[in-house]
Amino acid sequence: MKDLVQSVELGVTQRKGVKVTRPKVWIKNELVRVGLAECLCTYVMMAFGLGSVAQVVTGQGAFGQYLSINLGFGLGVAMGVHVGGKVSGAHMNAAVSFTMCTFGRLAWKMLPLYVFAQLLGSFLAAGTIYAVYYEAIHAYCGGNLTVTGIKATAGIFATYPAPYLSLLAGFIDQVFGTAMLLLCLMALSDQRNKPAAAGSEPVAVGLLVLLIGISLGSNSGYAINPTRDIAPRVFTAIAGWGADVFRAGNGWWWVPLVAPPIGGVLGAGIYKALVELHHPRLSEQGGGLVEKLEEEENAPLEKQKNSCENVCV
Amino acid sequence: MKDLVQSVELGVTQRKGVKVTRPKVWIKNELVRVGLAECLCTYVMMAFGLGSVAQVVTGQGAFGQYLSINLGFGLGVAMGVHVGGKVSGAHMNAAVSFTMCTFGRLAWKMLPLYVFAQLLGSFLAAGTIYAVYYEAIHAYCGGNLTVTGIKATAGIFATYPAPYLSLLAGFIDQVFGTAMLLLCLMALSDQRNKPAAAGSEPVAVGLLVLLIGISLGSNSGYAINPTRDIAPRVFTAIAGWGADVFRAGNGWWWVPLVAPPIGGVLGAGIYKALVELHHPRLSEQGGGLVEKLEEEENAPLEKQKNSCENVCV
Amino acid sequence: MKDLVQSVELGVTQRKGVKVTRPKVWIKNELVRVGLAECLCTYVMMAFGLGSVAQVVTGQGAFGQYLSINLGFGLGVAMGVHVGGKVSGAHMNAAVSFTMCTFGRLAWKMLPLYVFAQLLGSFLAAGTIYAVYYEAIHAYCGGNLTVTGIKATAGIFATYPAPYLSLLAGFIDQVFGTAMLLLCLMALSDQRNKPAAAGSEPVAVGLLVLLIGISLGSNSGYAINPTRDIAPRVFTAIAGWGADVFRAGNGWWWVPLVAPPIGGVLGAGIYKALVELHHPRLSEQGGGLVEKLEEEENAPLEKQKNSCENVCV
Amino acid sequence: MKDLVQSVELGVTQRKGVKVTRPKVWIKNELVRVGLAECLCTYVMMAFGLGSVAQVVTGQGAFGQYLSINLGFGLGVAMGVHVGGKVSGAHMNAAVSFTMCTFGRLAWKMLPLYVFAQLLGSFLAAGTIYAVYYEAIHAYCGGNLTVTGIKATAGIFATYPAPYLSLLAGFIDQVFGTAMLLLCLMALSDQRNKPAAAGSEPVAVGLLVLLIGISLGSNSGYAINPTRDIAPRVFTAIAGWGADVFRAGNGWWWVPLVAPPIGGVLGAGIYKALVELHHPRLSEQGGGLVEKLEEEENAPLEKQKNSCENVCV
Repeated sequence: MKDLVQSVELGVTQRKGVKVTRPKVWIKNELVRVGLAECLCTYVMMAFGLGSVAQVVTGQGAFGQYLSINLGFGLGVAMGVHVGGKVSGAHMNAAVSFTMCTFGRLAWKMLPLYVFAQLLGSFLAAGTIYAVYYEAIHAYCGGNLTVTGIKATAGIFATYPAPYLSLLAGFIDQVFGTAMLLLCLMALSDQRNKPAAAGSEPVAVGLLVLLIGISLGSNSGYAINPTRDIAPRVFTAIAGWGADVFRAGNGWWWVPLVAPPIGGVLGAGIYKALVELHHPRLSEQGGGLVEKLEEEENAPLEKQKNSCENVCV
Repeated sequence: MKDLVQSVELGVTQRKGVKVTRPKVWIKNELVRVGLAECLCTYVMMAFGLGSVAQVVTGQGAFGQYLSINLGFGLGVAMGVHVGGKVSGAHMNAAVSFTMCTFGRLAWKMLPLYVFAQLLGSFLAAGTIYAVYYEAIHAYCGGNLTVTGIKATAGIFATYPAPYLSLLAGFIDQVFGTAMLLLCLMALSDQRNKPAAAGSEPVAVGLLVLLIGISLGSNSGYAINPTRDIAPRVFTAIAGWGADVFRAGNGWWWVPLVAPPIGGVLGAGIYKALVELHHPRLSEQGGGLVEKLEEEENAPLEKQKNSCENVCV
Repeated sequence: MKDLVQSVELGVTQRKGVKVTRPKVWIKNELVRVGLAECLCTYVMMAFGLGSVAQVVTGQGAFGQYLSINLGFGLGVAMGVHVGGKVSGAHMNAAVSFTMCTFGRLAWKMLPLYVFAQLLGSFLAAGTIYAVYYEAIHAYCGGNLTVTGIKATAGIFATYPAPYLSLLAGFIDQVFGTAMLLLCLMALSDQRNKPAAAGSEPVAVGLLVLLIGISLGSNSGYAINPTRDIAPRVFTAIAGWGADVFRAGNGWWWVPLVAPPIGGVLGAGIYKALVELHHPRLSEQGGGLVEKLEEEENAPLEKQKNSCENVCV
Repeated sequence: MKDLVQSVELGVTQRKGVKVTRPKVWIKNELVRVGLAECLCTYVMMAFGLGSVAQVVTGQGAFGQYLSINLGFGLGVAMGVHVGGKVSGAHMNAAVSFTMCTFGRLAWKMLPLYVFAQLLGSFLAAGTIYAVYYEAIHAYCGGNLTVTGIKATAGIFATYPAPYLSLLAGFIDQVFGTAMLLLCLMALSDQRNKPAAAGSEPVAVGLLVLLIGISLGSNSGYAINPTRDIAPRVFTAIAGWGADVFRAGNGWWWVPLVAPPIGGVLGAGIYKALVELHHPRLSEQGGGLVEKLEEEENAPLEKQKNSCENVCV
């Protein structure tokens, strides 16, 4: 602990009419900084996302419909990207982190930190939303917390497949959804193509997640994210829904863990193979900017971590 | 009055084919300028917000659903930020002003002015919307202005809790909602992280309020704002709904007054503690920009009041 | 005609593999240029707006709800601003043009041209939408074109008040709606406050119109625009709905003509009186930019007509 | 094949803790680069668009309504523009390509490549969505794939006219819808007027397509795009819906092929005739920028292909 918090100062700044006492405690250790930011942005995204599901389910249509949930996760992701921003890159999704590692945009040794921070943020958000909607959920289901049936409430927290869906089809659904996510994320951050406008990346990523919910959401609730799904599922198992959360949907729980990383690498790989790799070499265009850019492209990523564009969006 | 209006000129400018007579009356007194702007932007936000509720309630579903109300307040906030803009920072919310004072972004002595201006704008907006929707409201409820029951109309103006909600749960709901608001506002204005793009702050804040309505709205109508709630409540008490507006929901009225300032400080504090405080010191990065920025950071805020980024967004 | 079309050239440009024959006909006469642009952008806005009403009415809920109409007019206005853009300023609304004249941003002698162009574009759009939705409208109402009743279709083209609305309340409704429109338009274009980001003005104005439809739409269909309302009303009178379009709603037709210009001047005046007039004088801030800006502020407007910000948004 | 893939390198870059093996395979041949990008962006747009229809149809209202489909195609187009971006210009629509050729913004000899790439991407997207929604579609219709009737599912893939629509009215509908698309696309990319803000073109085009769906969608499903319609129609003919996909709607299938190119040229021509041609000559405004811009305007387009603004948006 001592080497994490490098400096503690207590400063009393006298301003014209404003007396401010602020302890200047800051952490230089990069791992802790990144972990805190990744945890907080995942928490923000998940609290808004799960909150929108809780509102729609317990409101029985009076406080929003399916589109509200799509907006809740879409805008939640946008706010999460603002919060995690340049510090951690705001992956908020283990499949994104895994894909970034695969394509050399994040060091593999950072992966456990990202996944742990995401799991923690996601778990805490599930707990918070349960607390905030505790009375609404219990009023809705009469205090009977169930995973299936007409008054099921487990779907507020984790995803469950539609009745018609086989495990194989659900696996394909999750691979495809995550592939589309990463394919488009790659395009949104490809500075040599038509990326999201500088500063508008958070909204662009939010619109992408909104779109996936509108287009690829009905089969199994578009988890497309291992950490988004498993942490709230474990929370519900503990909080009263019991082991059914793992049994439901023919043992669906492992699909959002395994399929998204595969889909992520597939989607990002397709974008790279069909578009990114074939951009004209800068050195063929001449100009003084070339060496700098090519160098940056090959620079070790840990040095670039403060730049959001290089890590995720 | 005399010392407020510093200069009155009557000018007739002869333009090519355009004869303009405009009295040049302007106010140099900063307090009056800020108060007028804060009052007008709160009025704009509240008129649009309350108007959207009136339209949904009296239209019985034919002119919009719950999402319309979320959009009404979200876009209303965006327009309010454009109106108050750089003059007052467009807080439009006493919990925001209180949090800004707590973290030294606004002088405490300015707080009463902001709160008064917000109360006035909010009260006037409630009166205007009652006038504009007078016939609609009376046609809807048969002239019987009630706070509860199937044709209740008091909810057009102030917030009331859902039937299942205890005061404690409602208090937590309001603390949490306002915490999320301020946490994200801090991120949206953190120039060392991933802030809202220059010029798009109004829309970004509007999307945030839309999101809170979509995710955290069904328990008690997401007041997350003392001045938004109490002024229209007082208006309805006077205008014909009577003292029931204070009795309903187990005496709910004080919760939106007390909980949001607590939540605001909590949320902004969490962002600062987990992210903002740990940004690498500029002085560690070298460069000539450093001294200027660090200086600005420590500059007395009253000097910065004309810059929206420093006051609110 | 001869002096309008100043130059006709027929050029055959030989490109690598592309043979282009394009007649270079262009019009230097400013009045014609402005009139054509204003007519076309009004046409675009009205075609999209009326189309969305036709789709919702004839689709009986299967192809959109009230929010679709709000989006249809909101996004329609955004596209109209792109089309009219810097040429005419894309007022598309006689109340906007009248207010601009009142505050010296447009020469009064230009007003008849703007109004005529808007009426023409609006009339043509009504005709086009009737043609495009001819079979849908006749299938919906069984060929019986009526202004009132359960299968009324005149509301696709012009606005009609709700059954409960008196003429006085409707007049207030239209004054207030247009006042909010112009108040916010003034803020969106106030370069010393927090205007819409450069380049995003069309979307900002579109969101404003969307918001007015969401918040102030149910009383009388938010015409807030004389030319938007009267031209399609005349069209329907001719096309088969008859004189009922002028009789309905107690002779409602004149309200959207008279109330909006009053509201526009009122709203813009309030913004100017409470905010714009009190911006600190540039000359008090020093700096070389001052003289240039103050000069621009006082420049004859006809010279500025090519700059959208000075004419409307 | 050998002359397409010009260079294959296998590089092992040793980074600090990151070992990356990436084969550097890239294609210099411009035709292949453009074809791949156009195919991929059309695939992305179509997968999201068709997915949203599949979700609404098979979800029977529980997972979105008509507005979801409008958003699915609108945001799908936005993501497609990000993906195809500067490489191919992301037409994703043969009517757009045809219009660009007509007005000299694309070489005619490129047209077959664009159309082929669009057909391929559209066909593959139809196949993917059928695979991903296979179980949902079969659960919905009981395994009975029909083109008409209450459980018809062919409309997920291609467009069909409303029951009331004659072929002539449908033809006009498609000409008009595509005319509005190209008219506004021309305005969005007219750098001398009020174009979409730099970097926000993808979202602007997406909003335009959303708007067309909201305003001009109910007559025949707003194909406004030959390649979007015919490829999925052929797919359904093969995949089990049979020859009915060509018989339905009085042999509707050829209308979305023939009408959109006519409408596209008409709409773009109207914008050019009424607005673009009459912009003041740059040379009349003086300044050093003039020669450069006029030159660019006349530059062979193949040289400009890497710049999105010149090809499409």
